[in-house]
Amino acid sequence: MIFKVIVKNCCVVYHQRKREFCKLRKYGTIFTGALAIFTSKQTINTEEFMALPITSLEHLSSQPNDMKTKMELMILKVQKEFCDALEKEDDCSKFLVDRWQRKEGGGGITCVLQDGQVFEKAGVNISVVSGTLPAAAVAQMRSRGRKLGEGQLPFFAAGISAVIHPVNPMVPTIHFNYRYFEVRDDEGTQWWFGGGTDLTPYYLNAADAVHFHQTLKNACDKHDKTYYGKFKKWCDDYFHIPHRGERRGVGGIFFDDLDSPGSEECFEFVTECANSVIPSYIPLVQRHKTAKYTNVEREWQLLRRGRYVEFNLIYDRGTKFGLYTPGARYESILMSLPLHARWEYMHVPKENTPEGELLAVLRNPKDWVEYSCEDENKTS
Amino acid sequence: MIFKVIVKNCCVVYHQRKREFCKLRKYGTIFTGALAIFTSKQTINTEEFMALPITSLEHLSSQPNDMKTKMELMILKVQKEFCDALEKEDDCSKFLVDRWQRKEGGGGITCVLQDGQVFEKAGVNISVVSGTLPAAAVAQMRSRGRKLGEGQLPFFAAGISAVIHPVNPMVPTIHFNYRYFEVRDDEGTQWWFGGGTDLTPYYLNAADAVHFHQTLKNACDKHDKTYYGKFKKWCDDYFHIPHRGERRGVGGIFFDDLDSPGSEECFEFVTECANSVIPSYIPLVQRHKTAKYTNVEREWQLLRRGRYVEFNLIYDRGTKFGLYTPGARYESILMSLPLHARWEYMHVPKENTPEGELLAVLRNPKDWVEYSCEDENKTS
Repeated sequence: MIFKVIVKNCCVVYHQRKREFCKLRKYGTIFTGALAIFTSKQTINTEEFMALPITSLEHLSSQPNDMKTKMELMILKVQKEFCDALEKEDDCSKFLVDRWQRKEGGGGITCVLQDGQVFEKAGVNISVVSGTLPAAAVAQMRSRGRKLGEGQLPFFAAGISAVIHPVNPMVPTIHFNYRYFEVRDDEGTQWWFGGGTDLTPYYLNAADAVHFHQTLKNACDKHDKTYYGKFKKWCDDYFHIPHRGERRGVGGIFFDDLDSPGSEECFEFVTECANSVIPSYIPLVQRHKTAKYTNVEREWQLLRRGRYVEFNLIYDRGTKFGLYTPGARYESILMSLPLHARWEYMHVPKENTPEGELLAVLRNPKDWVEYSCEDENKTS
Repeated sequence: MIFKVIVKNCCVVYHQRKREFCKLRKYGTIFTGALAIFTSKQTINTEEFMALPITSLEHLSSQPNDMKTKMELMILKVQKEFCDALEKEDDCSKFLVDRWQRKEGGGGITCVLQDGQVFEKAGVNISVVSGTLPAAAVAQMRSRGRKLGEGQLPFFAAGISAVIHPVNPMVPTIHFNYRYFEVRDDEGTQWWFGGGTDLTPYYLNAADAVHFHQTLKNACDKHDKTYYGKFKKWCDDYFHIPHRGERRGVGGIFFDDLDSPGSEECFEFVTECANSVIPSYIPLVQRHKTAKYTNVEREWQLLRRGRYVEFNLIYDRGTKFGLYTPGARYESILMSLPLHARWEYMHVPKENTPEGELLAVLRNPKDWVEYSCEDENKTS
């Protein structure tokens, strides 16, 4: 507080006597440079974050227009807002905050709430890492169509990722992840955004699914009317457990390699998506967190959590990328796993039960909100 | 029963009047051939199995010296003996027996005991499958050094695989798997055996580990004095969770691509190993199944089961091979997963606790029985 008052007064004096300061031309460059760093710090309010940023405040302040800075500040803010919103729903529990550094470059902030009244396990993680991408990771990016040079390449990645497993089986699990990548090869620097938000209910509630998808569609539509339809399908295709022929949940949106029309537009879209997480999910928590349930519903929730683990450990590209990246922090990657999971041999719910109804939708994904197929052929 | 009496009487008559039968030379070949099939069926006692063999009794009877037959009959017998031994320890529970067929060729028998008094989940599976190996599976075999032609290849595989997760945290989990492979390419048919037995305790008991390893060493030593040392190290290397820097348990033996000195010798060795499962494990069940424990030990057991799931779903070659094989029966593959598992963020037991002591051994595998390094240079 005292520090702030001093800085503020300095700024007032500086602005009032700018003309006189400017006369001191011979010290000008050094002085005003230092002052610029000092005063611009004012614009980064660290109280809006769960912990200090990963990159130094000086660096962030000196590069306010760099996409790396903008992305880091955005994910820090979203992390704080989401953790606050969850804590508000779970009166008795607070997030544990772990700020960690990666010896190869960068670090992250992992926030975990465990064994809460409303949330059994909630993990909200940001990471801002840089260094050299292993050849295998580069090969994987090339295999999905990115034109990158071969071998190890310098990279930067900043992202937010969260998985919320509630106690009450009537409250669905949510996952979201928004990320920005830069990779440098002989041809220059390539950048792209990726991400998505998806919902995994244990009991199907059509109104929830509609609200969730509508919120995401509204966010998408503000930027490109073709996005929702494309990204909804991508989500259904991605969160797929082939050996069971099931989707992980009722979907949402998912996209990768987004690099057009421009980095500003992409950033604004990703920010919009990240900001739509709270309005898409928190109303569902409020609606069901006190719902009555028995051991039957709890056991089914645990079985579905087993499927969640299967998807994350066998198929999820993010988990694989994480675990195979040298120096990766596995505790932050595996924070997505539920506190409890269950596997029963040959558990098949009957067709006309709530469990069977969920399964039917997981096997044949539905369109929860209307979207015109024509939309997919024109850009807003 | 009636069928047996008829067959027996026929045999008695045949043996009594063999000389007269032999006079009927002109029908001799056809008649005695048919009779041979008929009488040799006697040698396959299906009461020794949990269900009827996968291959028809006629085929098995007509090819008694084929390694495919010998392997199928051996694993059927071991499955029955092991299930019987487990049922004896868990008075109240019986194995559920699922005999299944694979539309691409072959099938299996999956035996599962769930929610028992002594065993939380016990799965004992045999499979006898044939068909065409996908190119990716062939590539994986080539990558570990097998000289096989490229592309899809005809194959046969027979194996037994079991994972036993007990209720009491003082009783360790056991896993074993013994298998025989044949793959045909332009150069001819290649065959090999693979397998292993390993122990995953939740609380370290040195006497248990010594007994377990000594039993396996005795089995190995009867066949080749170099086996135990080599296969013990292979086991420690294989059941490794790299992201945690831990082994899954206290090891045992593990081997693959065993194709010398000859198929008979290999088969006898693998049979010896499979037969040593009961003496290596059942005494540990008897010793600890009534041990007292609290919720602290139960929660640690569940956390360790989470690690078991991580290994099986992320790293285990068998699980991957299974899930990526077309027409594979995922319920039989995933039967290895525990009924319950738990993941806590950043759970680190203290050093001087029983939990910490286990972890120290998982990080630095021990030699539980003495074996001479010289042994590794000479064959018995």
